[in-house]
Amino acid sequence: MAVSQTNLAWATLLDIGPSEHGGALRLHDRLALALRTTIRDGRLTEGAAVPPSRALAEELGCSRWVVTEAYGQLIAEGFLSARVGSATRVSWSPDASPTRPRARHVPAQTAIRYDLAPGLPDLRAFPRRRWAEAVRAVTGSAVHYDLGLPDPAGHAELRTTVAQYLRRSRGADADTTSVSVCAGVTDGLVRTCRALHARGITDLAMEHPGWRRLRDAATSTGLRVHPVPVDDDGLRVEDLVRTPARVVVVGAAHQFPTGTVLSPRRRARLVRWARETDGFVIEDDYDAEFRYDRHPVAVIQGMEPSRVFLLGSVSKTLSPALGLGWLVAPTAMAQALRSANPVAAAPPVLDQLALATFIERGWYDAHLRAARRRFRSRRDLLIRTLAAQIPQGRVAGTAAGLHVLLHLPDDTDTRGSVRAAAATGLRLTDLDDYRMHRSAERALVLGYGNISDTDIASAVALLREALSSPSTSGPPGTAQSGDDGL
Amino acid sequence: MAVSQTNLAWATLLDIGPSEHGGALRLHDRLALALRTTIRDGRLTEGAAVPPSRALAEELGCSRWVVTEAYGQLIAEGFLSARVGSATRVSWSPDASPTRPRARHVPAQTAIRYDLAPGLPDLRAFPRRRWAEAVRAVTGSAVHYDLGLPDPAGHAELRTTVAQYLRRSRGADADTTSVSVCAGVTDGLVRTCRALHARGITDLAMEHPGWRRLRDAATSTGLRVHPVPVDDDGLRVEDLVRTPARVVVVGAAHQFPTGTVLSPRRRARLVRWARETDGFVIEDDYDAEFRYDRHPVAVIQGMEPSRVFLLGSVSKTLSPALGLGWLVAPTAMAQALRSANPVAAAPPVLDQLALATFIERGWYDAHLRAARRRFRSRRDLLIRTLAAQIPQGRVAGTAAGLHVLLHLPDDTDTRGSVRAAAATGLRLTDLDDYRMHRSAERALVLGYGNISDTDIASAVALLREALSSPSTSGPPGTAQSGDDGL
Repeated sequence: MAVSQTNLAWATLLDIGPSEHGGALRLHDRLALALRTTIRDGRLTEGAAVPPSRALAEELGCSRWVVTEAYGQLIAEGFLSARVGSATRVSWSPDASPTRPRARHVPAQTAIRYDLAPGLPDLRAFPRRRWAEAVRAVTGSAVHYDLGLPDPAGHAELRTTVAQYLRRSRGADADTTSVSVCAGVTDGLVRTCRALHARGITDLAMEHPGWRRLRDAATSTGLRVHPVPVDDDGLRVEDLVRTPARVVVVGAAHQFPTGTVLSPRRRARLVRWARETDGFVIEDDYDAEFRYDRHPVAVIQGMEPSRVFLLGSVSKTLSPALGLGWLVAPTAMAQALRSANPVAAAPPVLDQLALATFIERGWYDAHLRAARRRFRSRRDLLIRTLAAQIPQGRVAGTAAGLHVLLHLPDDTDTRGSVRAAAATGLRLTDLDDYRMHRSAERALVLGYGNISDTDIASAVALLREALSSPSTSGPPGTAQSGDDGL
Repeated sequence: MAVSQTNLAWATLLDIGPSEHGGALRLHDRLALALRTTIRDGRLTEGAAVPPSRALAEELGCSRWVVTEAYGQLIAEGFLSARVGSATRVSWSPDASPTRPRARHVPAQTAIRYDLAPGLPDLRAFPRRRWAEAVRAVTGSAVHYDLGLPDPAGHAELRTTVAQYLRRSRGADADTTSVSVCAGVTDGLVRTCRALHARGITDLAMEHPGWRRLRDAATSTGLRVHPVPVDDDGLRVEDLVRTPARVVVVGAAHQFPTGTVLSPRRRARLVRWARETDGFVIEDDYDAEFRYDRHPVAVIQGMEPSRVFLLGSVSKTLSPALGLGWLVAPTAMAQALRSANPVAAAPPVLDQLALATFIERGWYDAHLRAARRRFRSRRDLLIRTLAAQIPQGRVAGTAAGLHVLLHLPDDTDTRGSVRAAAATGLRLTDLDDYRMHRSAERALVLGYGNISDTDIASAVALLREALSSPSTSGPPGTAQSGDDGL
């Protein structure tokens, strides 16, 4: 039982002093951890004997039990092996392949002082107290069953509450069975596309320009995406009919990023198209709650529930960090949705119940009313400031949503301006970021959801500066631009 | 401007009395809703004129403004159209296709009184107060930025906390960059399989018997699944090497459902296999925290972090309703994971921060200690009761996890017993449910996570009854069995 490495100071080799884990680990666990690390690092190599337990215990000043426990642990894990009448030996060696790369260094970014990227509501106005209260209430009141395996379609209580909300506020045709809960519009679109794909659909049309993330979602399910242009009346249905697609994703109430509303004539034509082609409309109702000049237009889904999927979420009204959305599907598609998404899970149950409570107590309506007032006046302020400071620009888009489109003269270097602005702490987004190819039309998408009223003047002043700065020399495409969001 | 339907009692047709929405809708909204419903139902057909706003206002006893607002809304939505000098007319008709099917009737199930299906922790012991407190704390303290677009890999705070937890309690090699947050083991497996598939891997091996849900997850990403048998030493690596797979999913610490622990020799052989085939191991560490006879064996991932993906969650320790899990990936696979999952989202941010707080405050360790004590004594009680009541059975599986395997004589009709038990309110699971084909070996998988100690005697008495009841006549495969879980 000779120990082969008697010259080693084991107490030094095995660093079992107070570790980062503090008192959470008992002594034998710390010894096992130290042995494991030493073997993994290659400091103790395969075949090397470890000291007899009595010897190591003496050196470390601990009981022999501590050492035998630690050895036993590493034997079970395959790091050590013991044979009767022989020393316990290292039976493991780390892979000889080169050291794995270290985490890459993330370059420091200029801090964002003013955020005019679209896609965010006012994060400062998130109703923290009421949300925490809703979670507290449901965590106390949920039945045990609610803490078990969740219904993949979502908790019935939230589905019922959302159905009622969508009926009264969006004119939807929805009930508990047709609503399912998902993580947001992107998640809802992925599920829908999978169901359509399983039904033999291979082509899908999308508004252009539009959310890149939704395009990614659709293509990730194997569908071919056909862009269809948008004009002042919304999606050009006359162009849609020329694509091979039988399904189209449309932001009828407020198209992103152009801000147009689908005209009554186009709405009717779109539904006729769906009937005639035996096709489907996927309605992205992402920020329809925010309309400032009049009542929001009801969803198309209410006109033709058997041919329209309706997608919505609280990402633009409360916060994208909540990860809560819904999907209203035609009844005939319910089975296809389930079988095409065999392992899709609904969001955490307590969050679902919290949202149901938040809506039922009237807090969601109250939050929306306050947000509508806030965004209406902020939008007016932004447009006034832009008119005064950037006379060459022209603001487009309905009085709705959380962003405006700022059209600029054809010779504007929008890409360079986005870059120049980023260097001063102003985050901007080029309309081209939502296109599949560059366009002659120059415009910026200015989000006013997540900027305070008092910062508008400074942000627009920086924007004016960025627009007048000479083009920077960086290659096109490297601009720090807004995230494409949910 | 003649009204075509003067005989209609408009106030009756348009049911605008206090609706389910109570005071939440203003009068013109209620009128718009009523008009919409009437048109959708086909009670007002395309071409029909609606009364002049003044006339309808008189009949309804409201101001003319209410009517013009409602008409304006429905014109914008395409239900009505107005031309100068003519009546406002219905411009919409519902689809002529047959009435959509009503929601199917769900047959009433016998209420579950005793739940011996595997896969659930003790839902009665969910730490409601502390969880709510953790959510409350982070909802108050989160910075605004945390409420914005979430990091798809998970919040850095939770990733750091989980990495430290896995290092100290599971012997993992993990840091903030190698950990990502996901919704659970299934979600983590889907992401991993997609990344492997994108790297050209087409075949994956899985333990057999095993979780059906994991098999569904793998096949949903396009991988071919090869079952590999499990014996008393865990996965039979000698059979694995004969499959074309270069990737295997393994429950090394406690295989489900056999309850075996991968032997030290097999662990080493498995890693050698991965090195030699340039392959990967996906380690499903689903319930390793629960080992009652000794310290849990550390993860294989710690031996070979460049070839092992480690999956875990709180579904078996806290609750599957939380939807929180993690994935530790080889550094070289980080980019592939991101690009193969372009639209995957992390769980809600506040939940992530709450779990980080829950762990950091020591509440997770305290919960696990209490749960370990509880499950150890409950497992002993169950085994004693089974030995006394069902002498023909033989209990297998390491003293670990949340279930035991009850082997039964070859002539036992386990399927019929599951059905008979369900009728008495006892939920059981046939081992065959975790197999791809029926086997001659008869066994039940008995979960003791979600049953109270005081119910064990009654549950086992019902089990004894079910085992001795004559086979029922239903066709095979219709048994009400436990859910396949997360």
